[in-house]
Amino acid sequence: MSNSNYANLDPIFYPRSIALAGITVTNPEHWTRTFLDSLLEFRYEGSLYLVNPKGGEIEGLKVYPSLGDIPQAIDYVIGLVPAKAAPGLVEECSGKGVKAIHFCTAGFSETGEEAGIRLEAEITELARRKGLRIIGPNCMGIYNPKAHLSFQADFPKESGTVGFISQSGGNAIDLVKLTMWRGVRFSKVISYGNACDLNESDFLEYFAIDRDIRVIAMYIEGVKDGRRFRQALHKAAKAKPVILLKGGITEGGARAAAGHTGALAGSEMVWDSLCKQLGVIRVHSLEEMADILVTLLFMPLPPGRRVALIGGGGGASVLITDEFEKIGLKVPPVPQEIRNQIREFTPVAGNILRNPIDYSQTMAEVGKLARTVSIISKWEGIDFVIGFMRPNLAAASIRRRMSETVDEILEGSKASSKPLGIVLEPSILPDEAKETLPLIQKCASYGLPVYYSFAGAANAISLVLSHNERHSGKARA
Amino acid sequence: MSNSNYANLDPIFYPRSIALAGITVTNPEHWTRTFLDSLLEFRYEGSLYLVNPKGGEIEGLKVYPSLGDIPQAIDYVIGLVPAKAAPGLVEECSGKGVKAIHFCTAGFSETGEEAGIRLEAEITELARRKGLRIIGPNCMGIYNPKAHLSFQADFPKESGTVGFISQSGGNAIDLVKLTMWRGVRFSKVISYGNACDLNESDFLEYFAIDRDIRVIAMYIEGVKDGRRFRQALHKAAKAKPVILLKGGITEGGARAAAGHTGALAGSEMVWDSLCKQLGVIRVHSLEEMADILVTLLFMPLPPGRRVALIGGGGGASVLITDEFEKIGLKVPPVPQEIRNQIREFTPVAGNILRNPIDYSQTMAEVGKLARTVSIISKWEGIDFVIGFMRPNLAAASIRRRMSETVDEILEGSKASSKPLGIVLEPSILPDEAKETLPLIQKCASYGLPVYYSFAGAANAISLVLSHNERHSGKARA
Repeated sequence: MSNSNYANLDPIFYPRSIALAGITVTNPEHWTRTFLDSLLEFRYEGSLYLVNPKGGEIEGLKVYPSLGDIPQAIDYVIGLVPAKAAPGLVEECSGKGVKAIHFCTAGFSETGEEAGIRLEAEITELARRKGLRIIGPNCMGIYNPKAHLSFQADFPKESGTVGFISQSGGNAIDLVKLTMWRGVRFSKVISYGNACDLNESDFLEYFAIDRDIRVIAMYIEGVKDGRRFRQALHKAAKAKPVILLKGGITEGGARAAAGHTGALAGSEMVWDSLCKQLGVIRVHSLEEMADILVTLLFMPLPPGRRVALIGGGGGASVLITDEFEKIGLKVPPVPQEIRNQIREFTPVAGNILRNPIDYSQTMAEVGKLARTVSIISKWEGIDFVIGFMRPNLAAASIRRRMSETVDEILEGSKASSKPLGIVLEPSILPDEAKETLPLIQKCASYGLPVYYSFAGAANAISLVLSHNERHSGKARA
Repeated sequence: MSNSNYANLDPIFYPRSIALAGITVTNPEHWTRTFLDSLLEFRYEGSLYLVNPKGGEIEGLKVYPSLGDIPQAIDYVIGLVPAKAAPGLVEECSGKGVKAIHFCTAGFSETGEEAGIRLEAEITELARRKGLRIIGPNCMGIYNPKAHLSFQADFPKESGTVGFISQSGGNAIDLVKLTMWRGVRFSKVISYGNACDLNESDFLEYFAIDRDIRVIAMYIEGVKDGRRFRQALHKAAKAKPVILLKGGITEGGARAAAGHTGALAGSEMVWDSLCKQLGVIRVHSLEEMADILVTLLFMPLPPGRRVALIGGGGGASVLITDEFEKIGLKVPPVPQEIRNQIREFTPVAGNILRNPIDYSQTMAEVGKLARTVSIISKWEGIDFVIGFMRPNLAAASIRRRMSETVDEILEGSKASSKPLGIVLEPSILPDEAKETLPLIQKCASYGLPVYYSFAGAANAISLVLSHNERHSGKARA
């Protein structure tokens, strides 16, 4: 199959009809039901068919004994049958006009056992002969809210601008859930597992020219064709920011990757230099990827590295400043003249008015924080502003006004056009989380980047600035 | 005052009577009330007096117009008066047999303004002349549950074995709250602020010989007397593990520290070599400090660096392995013979049986996880076992059994005496937190170290192993 055939995956990402082959009829909590639950929750608008040799009915939908019994052509099949039944399913599909099968089924090459490896080669070969494409096996498939397609019922229904190519289904779910409260929305997510047919390069090439996608994120365990991947990555990184998390960079990690998706991992050095050469933003965890995403999506690029830090807590002020400066951002001292302006209405006891600005003692007094943020925002010595709060440590008087505090920071920051970000430490205690989560969502609804830790904010902003310096440098060259 | 006077701080940590001088009578939410609320909640058993020139009553307790009006000698005064009233309070104290004043009050040298600097020098000089000790100013003072003393009402009431010396009150609160759900309990916490009199070295010397304290943690912004501090640190680190977080290691951070507690910060290089020379465990965030604490307290020291990783999630398996190996821990492959034992009752599809062991597909089947953990624990190729779970990403069938899953890991691990740790990713969503927090507490109640992230677990265990290698190396030399 020639390279040009790989370009257009529209029929796969926007199927007009779907069959769930091998869905369990009896047990509503069986993993195979996840896909039906998700498609129903997302109100998939095409024709939806269920297939199981036992027949019957699920949620009012007829279960067909076989694909052949469906009175219509099918675009897309989600294969939930056991591994040994996979070749038979490919055969069945070829008579029904199916364009692609997504095999969620595991038990193939990733087992490292002869039987699984042979089975995977068999379905790959069979599909190729029949002119079908395979996604997987051993993966979760497609999330494309615009097409009402999802593999998790509780993913956001709104479409966004991020494309995520993930070899792991769990990591795909994790990233969406890590970022959804902070306002990140996805155009398309693909969990592609063992990649016996369609692979990372296919999806990368498609995402690179997909106009709905502004930022590409990737979780890769291994690459099928290094040369082609390099080309695809080069092209994609020229077109839009690409963030890459490489799983399996250590010896043990590579073995884990082989056991997970049968991937050959490649060395750390190769990946490091690849990312540097092509201007890809390299991250080392999903949390870091989440921070980069909110920065790229919600923080207008600051013209430089100088930041004003404004928030609550003396010890917190010291620690956040260390995190920002350690990574190469600058926290310059507030000039005396500007400090005097703030001092006019702010007592010095319990506050620090130097940058960082610890406004703990006066935060609860209506309007003063907004005035201070406004004065600081206009200061020409800085390029962007970061507000920081530990809501769960704040005094009751401040904690009660936390939502207004966010408003005051936002209001104050309007005095200039300087980019604004917020660090809001969330809580893992149910009662505190009830207060903190709405704050996070509120900031996100204002279009602000929200970070969960000092280090996370500093790292993401610095990486994005470096990425831009590199790209704009290239543009000038 | 000679050095020997510094040694015994018992009268300060175990006062028989306390006066809260300057407590607000009218507003129950004023910050000065925090101290009364805490002492009442902790059922402080000594005599407790309230002082405010306005007189009156709070919660059934008489408010005396002045210290002089109290019909008894006072051991310990918590000074809540405005900064300018501080010298007067020191004068008053000297007639009442007071041994120490903790000034919570801010507005002294940390302001960087002439008036505050002068005021701090004045109270210091005055106290020295009158034979009183000062804690602070600008700090939260003492938490000592054994003495029913606290500055936060919601701190744990049980005493533990950690001593925390924190220049910042906010960071003191943060560490206690970060670790309490994971079973960490403190013997004593001291937030000591500007350290105009009693300073980090006094507390360190005292904690080093305090038999209730097994581990010392420190958050330091600056040091008053470098030579003495070095000696105290040397002595303490020989006696028990010392963990140190240095705030203000960057230029901006040092400026922040000066504004926070008036501290002179010292360079990164000096602190780095100091910690290395003395065998102090250096950390860079409170989260890292929390991870080190649970490791020191709850993980029996593994004899080596080889780990078996057992948990749920293929992508998670790859990422946790990378984190462990990247930092110098080893995740060796499971020998075929042991793998065969597990394969007897475990299907290979959807599981990874290589180390890491991803047991996602079979986790929900009663008893199988315990059997697998048992087989792995007996494997001689490893030194310790880490269970890992992302409860919030798990399928419903697994999620419902999460508590039993923890039991199975624990049960299986009893097949050998190998140390066991658990990585349990908490959730910041209220409903999920309701499920995850009890799991964390359950593990802690079993005496297990609980980590919140893959990287956090790997880093803490590696640091503690290195710390021990260093110390046992010294012992042999």
